[in-house]
Amino acid sequence: MIPKNILKPTLLLDEEKCQANIDNMFNKARKHNLRLRPHFKTHQSATIGQWFKNCGLHSITVSSVDMAIYFANNGWTDITIAFTLNIRELDKINSLAKRINLNLLVSSDDPIIHLKKEIANRIGLYIEIDTGYHRTGILPHNKQEITKILTHIEDSSNIEFNGFLTHSGHSYNADSRQEISEIHFDSLDKMNSLKESYKNHFPNLELSIGDTPCCSIMDNFEGIDEIRPGNFVFYDVMQYQLGSCSHEQIAVAVACPVVTKHKERYEIVIYGGAIHFSKEYILSNNIKQFGLVCELGENGWSAPIKDNYVSSLSQEHGILKCTKRFFKKIETGDLIVVLPIHSCLTSNLMPGYLTLKNEYF
Amino acid sequence: MIPKNILKPTLLLDEEKCQANIDNMFNKARKHNLRLRPHFKTHQSATIGQWFKNCGLHSITVSSVDMAIYFANNGWTDITIAFTLNIRELDKINSLAKRINLNLLVSSDDPIIHLKKEIANRIGLYIEIDTGYHRTGILPHNKQEITKILTHIEDSSNIEFNGFLTHSGHSYNADSRQEISEIHFDSLDKMNSLKESYKNHFPNLELSIGDTPCCSIMDNFEGIDEIRPGNFVFYDVMQYQLGSCSHEQIAVAVACPVVTKHKERYEIVIYGGAIHFSKEYILSNNIKQFGLVCELGENGWSAPIKDNYVSSLSQEHGILKCTKRFFKKIETGDLIVVLPIHSCLTSNLMPGYLTLKNEYF
Repeated sequence: MIPKNILKPTLLLDEEKCQANIDNMFNKARKHNLRLRPHFKTHQSATIGQWFKNCGLHSITVSSVDMAIYFANNGWTDITIAFTLNIRELDKINSLAKRINLNLLVSSDDPIIHLKKEIANRIGLYIEIDTGYHRTGILPHNKQEITKILTHIEDSSNIEFNGFLTHSGHSYNADSRQEISEIHFDSLDKMNSLKESYKNHFPNLELSIGDTPCCSIMDNFEGIDEIRPGNFVFYDVMQYQLGSCSHEQIAVAVACPVVTKHKERYEIVIYGGAIHFSKEYILSNNIKQFGLVCELGENGWSAPIKDNYVSSLSQEHGILKCTKRFFKKIETGDLIVVLPIHSCLTSNLMPGYLTLKNEYF
Repeated sequence: MIPKNILKPTLLLDEEKCQANIDNMFNKARKHNLRLRPHFKTHQSATIGQWFKNCGLHSITVSSVDMAIYFANNGWTDITIAFTLNIRELDKINSLAKRINLNLLVSSDDPIIHLKKEIANRIGLYIEIDTGYHRTGILPHNKQEITKILTHIEDSSNIEFNGFLTHSGHSYNADSRQEISEIHFDSLDKMNSLKESYKNHFPNLELSIGDTPCCSIMDNFEGIDEIRPGNFVFYDVMQYQLGSCSHEQIAVAVACPVVTKHKERYEIVIYGGAIHFSKEYILSNNIKQFGLVCELGENGWSAPIKDNYVSSLSQEHGILKCTKRFFKKIETGDLIVVLPIHSCLTSNLMPGYLTLKNEYF
C-alpha cells in the first residue's frame, strides 16, 4: 500500500508490472533462442538488477564505464558497455577487464590503435553498425573501415572480435507499427548481410540488436544472437505512444503534490518539474505533452485520465491542463500521479524507488 | 589551469566570470536601492553561496523546502522559498521557521486555511502575482482573491504579510530586448498598482520581482523593493540568445571527451548527453540547438565556434554538427567544451564544479 505521507515528488515503482515486463522479455528471448542482455541504464539499480538475476540472467548492458563498475561491484561478471569506447577511460577499463568479462564497442576506426596499444587484459569487442539511426556506428556498406579495424586487432591477444552490434534508435521516431517493422527488417537484412561477409573469417561472430520498440513488437529475429533492450523494464509514455506497450505495463510513475489550482483556465500546478522528469515530451495532435496524468489509488495508479496532461515543466513546477471534471475532483494538497514520457531520464533524476509495497531503495 | 586528465563529462566553473556576475548584479541592486535576494536554485552550492556572503549579502531565495534546509544548515538565516506553498511539507516548514527568518509564497487562496491553522512559528508571506507568465500566481485584477487571503491572515500572530511577488518568466520567451522591456514595464505597472491599492492597510508591503533577463537588461525598477534573479550567477546560451549577457559572461561549461567522428557528415560524437545537460534547447533559424561548442584552452574555454552546435542528445551521447574546419582540427580522445542551454538544469544534473584553478566542490 502506498504511504499517505508522501511530501514531495516521489518515483513509484509497481514491482509486479516490472517483474512481468522482465518475464515477458525473458520468455520472448528464450522462445527465439536469443541471449537477453538487458540494458541497465534504464533502472541503474542493484536491487532491480537482482530481479533479472533471479530469472537466471548473467549478461547485461550498461552505457558508461562507471555504470559497469557499479554493477561489477554488485556481482555482475559479464558486461557490455554499449557506448562508443572513450579512450580517456582506458585505465578504468583495464582494471575492470581484469576482474570481469568486459565487452567494448567501437563505432569507427579512430580509437582502435589506442585500444590495441593500451589494453592490458582480455576484452570482447563489438563493431557498432549504423543501420539507419545515424547517431553512431559504421555504415554497413563501409567494409573498408570494418576491415581496417579487424586487421588492426587480428594479432592482438587481448582483443577478441565478438561481432556486430546496432541500436536502431530511429524506431523511436516511427509513426506506426508498420514503420517499426520496416526499420526492424531493414536492420536485420543489413546485419545478416555483414555476418555473411565475415563469417568465414570469424565463424563465432555474433549479431546484437537493441531497441525496446523492435524487441517488444517484433516476432522475427532471424540471424540475431542477442538483444539488448533496456526501457522495457519500466516502459513509459513514449513507448505507449509507439505501441511497444499498453499503459498498464508502465511500471514507474511520479507521485506529485498538488500545490495550487487555477480555476480560470482549468490548470493544476504540481510540485514536480524538469529536475524530476527531464524535459522530454511527445507531440499529441501537435501539442507538447510532458507527462500523462493518473489518479492515485490504495494499491497503485489509475489508467491515464483522458484529455489531462502535463503541458509544461519548469525547474520544480509542472502545469497540468485538465478537464473540468478532473479539475473539480482534485484539491490542493492531494497527490496525483504522472506517467513519465521517458522513464530512463526520470529514473536517472530521482534518488530512489518507492514500491507499492512501501519499500524504498 | 584545467587538468588534462578529465575522463568524463565535467562541469567547469570559471570562478572569475562567476564572481564578476555576482558583483555586477550586487552593484546594480545597490545603485537602484534594491535588496538583492539571489535565487540559489541555479548553483545549489554552499561554496558559491559563500561568494555571495562575502559581498555582504544575507538574504536568499530557494525553490524547495529541502533547498532551504540545506542553506539554513550552511548558515543562511533569511530565506524565501519562491515556490508555491506545498502544504504537505508544513512540518518541515515549522521546524525551519523556528530557527531562521523564513518567507513563504501562496499563489492562490487554496492553502491559506491550512497554513493559518498549522503554522506554529513566525513566517513572512508573499502573495504571488501573475503578471503575464501564466504559470502560477493570482491575476492582478483579482482583488477578491487577494483580499480573501489578507482577511484570513489578519488575526494570525504567526503570519506576517510581506507583500507581492512575481516572476515574469515570460521574458524567457521574448524575441527581442524591446519585448523584454515591454514585459518588464508591464509587470512594474501591475505590481505598483497593487501596492497603491494595499499600502494604506499595509504600509510596509514590499514588491519583489525576479527574472534574470529583466534584472540583467533593465535599468528602471521604480517602486520595486527586492530582486530575486538566479541564473545570472552562471548565465547560459538561452540568456546569451536573449541578450541578457555576452558569451564571455557565461561562467559554466561542460568539458566532454570526443569519442568518435563521422567523416561522411562532419559530425563529432561526444560523451555528454541528456543526463548531463537535460534536454533544453534553443531554436536558431528554426534548428534545435542543445548547446554551443567551444575549444578548451590552458586557462578556460574559447568563444563559441561559429556554426558548430550540439544537434541532438540521447542519454549519454551528444552529436555535434561541425564545420569542416573545426571537424578536421578535433581528434578522438580530445576534450571539447559545450556551453549549456540552461545552466540551472545542467548544474542540477552534474555532481560538482571543477574550477579553472583546479578546485573541485
